[in-house]
Amino acid sequence: MQRVIGSRGLLRAPCFQRGAVRSYSTPNNTYIDVSKLTVQKTTHPKPKTPHQKLVFGKEFTDHMLTVDWSVENGWEAPKITPYGNLSISPASCSLHYAIQLFEGMKAYKDKEGRVRLFRPDKNFERMNNSARRLALPTLNPEGVTECIKALLRVDQDWIPSEKGYSLYLRPTLIGNQESLGVSPPNAAKMFVICSPVGPYYPDGFKPVKLLADHINVRAWPGGTGSYKLGANYAGGILPQQNAMKRGYSQILWLFSDQHYLTEVGTMNLFLFWKNEEGKLELVTPPLDGSILPGVTRDSILTIVKEWNEFQVTERPVKMAEVIKAIEEKRLMEIFGAGTAAIVSPVKQIHFNDKDYDIPINVEDPSATIGPLARRVVDRIMAIQYGEVDHPWSVIIDDQ
Amino acid sequence: MQRVIGSRGLLRAPCFQRGAVRSYSTPNNTYIDVSKLTVQKTTHPKPKTPHQKLVFGKEFTDHMLTVDWSVENGWEAPKITPYGNLSISPASCSLHYAIQLFEGMKAYKDKEGRVRLFRPDKNFERMNNSARRLALPTLNPEGVTECIKALLRVDQDWIPSEKGYSLYLRPTLIGNQESLGVSPPNAAKMFVICSPVGPYYPDGFKPVKLLADHINVRAWPGGTGSYKLGANYAGGILPQQNAMKRGYSQILWLFSDQHYLTEVGTMNLFLFWKNEEGKLELVTPPLDGSILPGVTRDSILTIVKEWNEFQVTERPVKMAEVIKAIEEKRLMEIFGAGTAAIVSPVKQIHFNDKDYDIPINVEDPSATIGPLARRVVDRIMAIQYGEVDHPWSVIIDDQ
Repeated sequence: MQRVIGSRGLLRAPCFQRGAVRSYSTPNNTYIDVSKLTVQKTTHPKPKTPHQKLVFGKEFTDHMLTVDWSVENGWEAPKITPYGNLSISPASCSLHYAIQLFEGMKAYKDKEGRVRLFRPDKNFERMNNSARRLALPTLNPEGVTECIKALLRVDQDWIPSEKGYSLYLRPTLIGNQESLGVSPPNAAKMFVICSPVGPYYPDGFKPVKLLADHINVRAWPGGTGSYKLGANYAGGILPQQNAMKRGYSQILWLFSDQHYLTEVGTMNLFLFWKNEEGKLELVTPPLDGSILPGVTRDSILTIVKEWNEFQVTERPVKMAEVIKAIEEKRLMEIFGAGTAAIVSPVKQIHFNDKDYDIPINVEDPSATIGPLARRVVDRIMAIQYGEVDHPWSVIIDDQ
Repeated sequence: MQRVIGSRGLLRAPCFQRGAVRSYSTPNNTYIDVSKLTVQKTTHPKPKTPHQKLVFGKEFTDHMLTVDWSVENGWEAPKITPYGNLSISPASCSLHYAIQLFEGMKAYKDKEGRVRLFRPDKNFERMNNSARRLALPTLNPEGVTECIKALLRVDQDWIPSEKGYSLYLRPTLIGNQESLGVSPPNAAKMFVICSPVGPYYPDGFKPVKLLADHINVRAWPGGTGSYKLGANYAGGILPQQNAMKRGYSQILWLFSDQHYLTEVGTMNLFLFWKNEEGKLELVTPPLDGSILPGVTRDSILTIVKEWNEFQVTERPVKMAEVIKAIEEKRLMEIFGAGTAAIVSPVKQIHFNDKDYDIPINVEDPSATIGPLARRVVDRIMAIQYGEVDHPWSVIIDDQ
């Protein structure tokens, strides 16, 4: 046998493209009907961990929401039941072919003790995009929002009232077909579990060190990087573990040998700098299919555009541009943005065997968060905790 | 705000590379100990569907194998229990971050009624590679093979004895950490379920039409395409559904704008042609990280190399080369290769708005399988069903 070692030579890379998030047809149009909701309360309420000791995503409230779906019956009656294990077939496509997607959102208690959600419409819009991509049924955002409100009323004692604390909600949709054939699922299960969480940085912001990774790749044009699927997370755990062993707390995911910045860990990415024309500019990678359309990302863009104080740009950014801005002392802040932390300031990026220091606050070397990131966090939290009136904050029992 | 629409211009594509399947460290070194196996038999054996009516992966035997793992205790005692639902936390990382992988293999009954496995060592070698990639524990192939033999003894009445029929085994490994943090799992579950299956083509081979897809991408450099992870399958279901709506039964997955052929549906791909030098050649894409290292693929390569009758080449193949070979009447056969069908002859490829007919048998237009594919199937089945002595066929109760 002759073994020919093929070389693929110089190729033109497939590019991520604006508007690449396509829409797909919905397999079933029935609706989740909140009027059919049943509530079975626990007879064994769990003890609650003091809020100072909460660890993200480890503790769950007393109840959960479940809604089953099948091709034959569409969405069944929603149920609130005691939190507990699911009974899942060992042949379920959720466990074999990663037919699973999720959302992350939070409920907040305001000073008056009212429970608030933050932009739930954005979560369920994205959840439906993810569902279509996996040939799973979509859900009516109003129906599921009303069911979640009911769940929050049942579990409202679990929502910490201290500022910075909240109840993390995890709406999840899994395929539940009991068959090893790789095909669109004939059954599905939507569930929502709730976990009380503290501030991501309980002792004040801790700027992070990133490992810029151009070996492992999170997403690819024609892949699923812009949908919130379990499948996008599996491959990232080992690279993240290896980064931590080297002293870096998150991966900075790069794309192509042009080293475009895409995401940081599981967050979107923002850079604040003086651009090459000497103008103040906030830059973030575009929704070209390569990154998750984050709710926090969208909120930051909307807020800073309203301020109208500097240029706001969605465009691909190369690592070389970041290094040039550092060298020319034009870079002012880099931060990640997501539901868990809101923002996460970056203090260092390791790239190609070199550590690059990122300024936190060019005026104050002792700062742990930059002035822009601070303003953004303050504004978003003021909305989330109802300190200002804003349509993004939805009170669950508004009269 | 000024919106800058970025163009990424001409890029050099990162290439898949030979030997790109890296090895990773094992999180836990304890072993599955078959001497600790417990067996709980069902008190309600299920009725068996007549073998002619079997549908792939829909029906399961009376029993299953389960082995739990935790960071603290390593692998627990393996258990054979009645087939039934798993109890899984709604916060399990198997359902949120696709921490799941599987294998596909078969057990066969030979003419003497003995039960045989086909190259189980290859499955567990690959399973361990997948496990390392997801920061899951590896398992000792001998231990799990012995447990599977025990399961087959319990469920041996479920193994059809007709030639072409077999018992499909699905070893599966899932992360089972009950936490929403994205991190290496502190708990896992390995299980094996069994499904009696008929020949993939019960009424003789049915050559398939393929839709060559250069929009959706199955795998990419720096991704996980060479590991058997659930995450590699989720994104393929919708494109496959859309292909079927257009009258094509499988996707031919292409990569890059050079349109390299990678896989067909969930199978590896072989082309048999006269190459440009006029020599007979069997070609298949290389194990460069872009494709699954199939057991059937490896078996075919080994068998045809032993024949030593024509050139056998592992190298990247472009769609343009296939079209040129069709036009110059050099193409003789294309077939997919995998555990379910062994081989699947291809009769047409739709590419760039054009249907290209692929010859099945250049000598006999009425044939449903080509001469090479036929020889390969006959040889592999002779080994699987023990008609010839071969080290690949492992008798479970060899004396």
